[in-house]
Amino acid sequence: MYNKVDEKFLAGLQAIVGKEHVYADPDTLDQYKTDEETDPSKFHTPEAVVAPGSTEEVAAIVKLANEANIPITVRSAGTSLSDGAIAVCGGIILLMGRMNRILEVNTEGLYMVAEAGALVKDCQTAAKKHDLVYAGDPSSAETCQIGGNLATNAGGIKAIRYGVTRDQVYGMTVVSPMGEILHVGACLKKKTTGYALEQLIMGSEGTLGIITEVTLKLQPLPPYRFDVLAMFDTVEKAARLVPTVIKAGLNPTSIEFMDNSFVRSTTTFCETDVPHRDIANFVYVTVETFDENQLDTGLEKLTELCEEAGALEVLEADDRLWTLRRSCQESLRILSDVTITDDFVVPVHKVAETIEHVKAMGDHYPFEVMVLGHAGDGNLHVCMCRKDLTEEEWNENVEKFHKEAYPYVYSLGGRLSGEHGIGAKKLHYMEEYTEPSELEYMRMIKRAVDPKNILNPGKIFNV
Amino acid sequence: MYNKVDEKFLAGLQAIVGKEHVYADPDTLDQYKTDEETDPSKFHTPEAVVAPGSTEEVAAIVKLANEANIPITVRSAGTSLSDGAIAVCGGIILLMGRMNRILEVNTEGLYMVAEAGALVKDCQTAAKKHDLVYAGDPSSAETCQIGGNLATNAGGIKAIRYGVTRDQVYGMTVVSPMGEILHVGACLKKKTTGYALEQLIMGSEGTLGIITEVTLKLQPLPPYRFDVLAMFDTVEKAARLVPTVIKAGLNPTSIEFMDNSFVRSTTTFCETDVPHRDIANFVYVTVETFDENQLDTGLEKLTELCEEAGALEVLEADDRLWTLRRSCQESLRILSDVTITDDFVVPVHKVAETIEHVKAMGDHYPFEVMVLGHAGDGNLHVCMCRKDLTEEEWNENVEKFHKEAYPYVYSLGGRLSGEHGIGAKKLHYMEEYTEPSELEYMRMIKRAVDPKNILNPGKIFNV
Repeated sequence: MYNKVDEKFLAGLQAIVGKEHVYADPDTLDQYKTDEETDPSKFHTPEAVVAPGSTEEVAAIVKLANEANIPITVRSAGTSLSDGAIAVCGGIILLMGRMNRILEVNTEGLYMVAEAGALVKDCQTAAKKHDLVYAGDPSSAETCQIGGNLATNAGGIKAIRYGVTRDQVYGMTVVSPMGEILHVGACLKKKTTGYALEQLIMGSEGTLGIITEVTLKLQPLPPYRFDVLAMFDTVEKAARLVPTVIKAGLNPTSIEFMDNSFVRSTTTFCETDVPHRDIANFVYVTVETFDENQLDTGLEKLTELCEEAGALEVLEADDRLWTLRRSCQESLRILSDVTITDDFVVPVHKVAETIEHVKAMGDHYPFEVMVLGHAGDGNLHVCMCRKDLTEEEWNENVEKFHKEAYPYVYSLGGRLSGEHGIGAKKLHYMEEYTEPSELEYMRMIKRAVDPKNILNPGKIFNV
Repeated sequence: MYNKVDEKFLAGLQAIVGKEHVYADPDTLDQYKTDEETDPSKFHTPEAVVAPGSTEEVAAIVKLANEANIPITVRSAGTSLSDGAIAVCGGIILLMGRMNRILEVNTEGLYMVAEAGALVKDCQTAAKKHDLVYAGDPSSAETCQIGGNLATNAGGIKAIRYGVTRDQVYGMTVVSPMGEILHVGACLKKKTTGYALEQLIMGSEGTLGIITEVTLKLQPLPPYRFDVLAMFDTVEKAARLVPTVIKAGLNPTSIEFMDNSFVRSTTTFCETDVPHRDIANFVYVTVETFDENQLDTGLEKLTELCEEAGALEVLEADDRLWTLRRSCQESLRILSDVTITDDFVVPVHKVAETIEHVKAMGDHYPFEVMVLGHAGDGNLHVCMCRKDLTEEEWNENVEKFHKEAYPYVYSLGGRLSGEHGIGAKKLHYMEEYTEPSELEYMRMIKRAVDPKNILNPGKIFNV
């Protein structure tokens, strides 16, 4: 179906970006055979790796790839948990990392312009210098790149207050699948001037265009905050706090949930004592404000809501307690070498029943089902540990679990992925659970703008 | 290019919706020759009018129209200011008004489900009954329909705090241009599960699908508010207040601007005395809060900001003063029978210079250029009055003005329309000022999903 990379094509790439930015040596290729994927059966070694330095170079590469019929897989920092940066159909890996400059912070217009390969933490830091916030904040902010955030519509812990990545973006420079340069979106609060291509291309996981430059919204940085950790003896009580806090108009920045399995693993991992360790489920609530007076009244109101919801205890969530939340994923290591993390999303008011249902499902499997999540968004990371299972038992049971859990999530109006994306990893589930008419509409768009299926083939759905 | 409506096609429509919901009599057809357009040269009489009662009926009509090769123009309440509901290519008008039910208000999940023909005011009222807000609020809320709001991504006066219509929507039922039923979007805070078709179809002015049912976000209703009217002796001082208020973190619900021309026309029209009438430019700021204590501190801070910006006077904006703002458009009647209202949008920090520039342009035209707008969004309604000009002089000068104003707006990063849409009225300007690569990307999508160009042809751009 596709051609193989040959000397002529490599020479073409070199003519575009310079010899030093094209790699075809086995060591480099091996380095890009995977992203955060740890299962070797999912690895694919690319045929070449190219690192362009400008939008024009990206466009020239895409045109060349169309002529040569060679697929391109775009790679930002390779932090994908869905095999999004693996070249599953072969061809070349296109690295965005050289295009990493912050180009402008406009304090009057409250926006920032950056190249797509800029680190998210650099965007956050550049904004903070001016007492402004870039509000996209995925857990991987330290290492991930802003273009990858847009391509996957990354979520993170501040989404309740600020929304997800697609809400933080004014515009983008994009190279289309046929190599045309587009400037989509605009630095405007309102716009009804043609189709919202920026919204279509965001979250398309690199299948509808390569994002090369981004214009991000900035907001004033709230100078005050309070953090509360409420402990509950049941999942239900803990989860029921979420809509109450949202309805009270406290405008929380984040509401995070950790089930008792995680409380136990992370307190052991961090060697931290907490009250009610063996029974408590944790809910963290963070509120930021511009008005110092709101600190007391807000904190008082929140404490009252927690107590009414039946909290065992309400503490100030200091650094020591937040470290527990941040160490959850790492703490799985003390339980097992091999783990898997799902990324369900359900309507916020269905969070309680989902957590309970999914945990109860665990009784019928040879692994514990642990739940952690951005409860205020209905986005749950459901984790399982292989422990002593054989590879066959593990694979079989994980698949069985997914075939039970995904239909349940869809029956509640939920979806496969809240923030990690479909990538290659969940492509078959995407095709199975998406309404055929909706899937066909997506395919018509993809076929129209990328007739040779050059950009990120084998991702989201098969064309 | 298209076929004409004939007896067979009418019989097909009748078989789908029932005889009583198909109209082909001259009186009814005449009634649907225009929307808010007043220029008879823009009118087009449709060949038939059909009023379906369900999504399934809409789908059947679209399939029939595809088979018969007859175009469909969708009409909500006909409040378009861009000839959006005029059947410029002939064919049939599809009326959404029968599908006007509010189907559900879910106070736990904080969402509402309505048929697309429901009045926006009915959606607002249904939410308010439960102390919730549906935050979309165009000026025409009393008469316009929710489906039309989504199709044009309507703006309105609350967009600074709440965003535009596309930010208020979880999901939609849509009939595709080939008659398939899709359920796009979901009642979720986060989602990276395929393309955001809901975002693509919203704002596409009915060219990519017919919205038949909507799921809207609801938010808690802030119980407290304060309203301020600040008066300034120059446009620049008035406009400069806007970013200051936004940066101060007051989270205003609206910031509205009226130039001195409008202050004079509307005070005359309403027979209302105000201080500094002959020189003042008005800025209204509304802030809503959940905390009664914030009323005093917020009001104090806002007053301080207004004074620092050089306000002549700062008043509480009571009903009497807000009536002036609401009566602006109507007040033009006392100046002229024929008027035209533009819908520019520019980056918020360019609002001051845009207003000044556009007003100064007026010196070279035989009409005054009056400016009114949602200043906090950079969305300006620029109005001109024909007064005693001949039709020829008027048309010639309006066109000349647009050919000067639109390139200026684009040079600032602005766009043709903030909220009214392109429709048929600005199609040629859209084609002229949009980057060819972006326009071609839009066309590829339209051609792919609507190969016979059945849905709303002659709108936004020519295929």
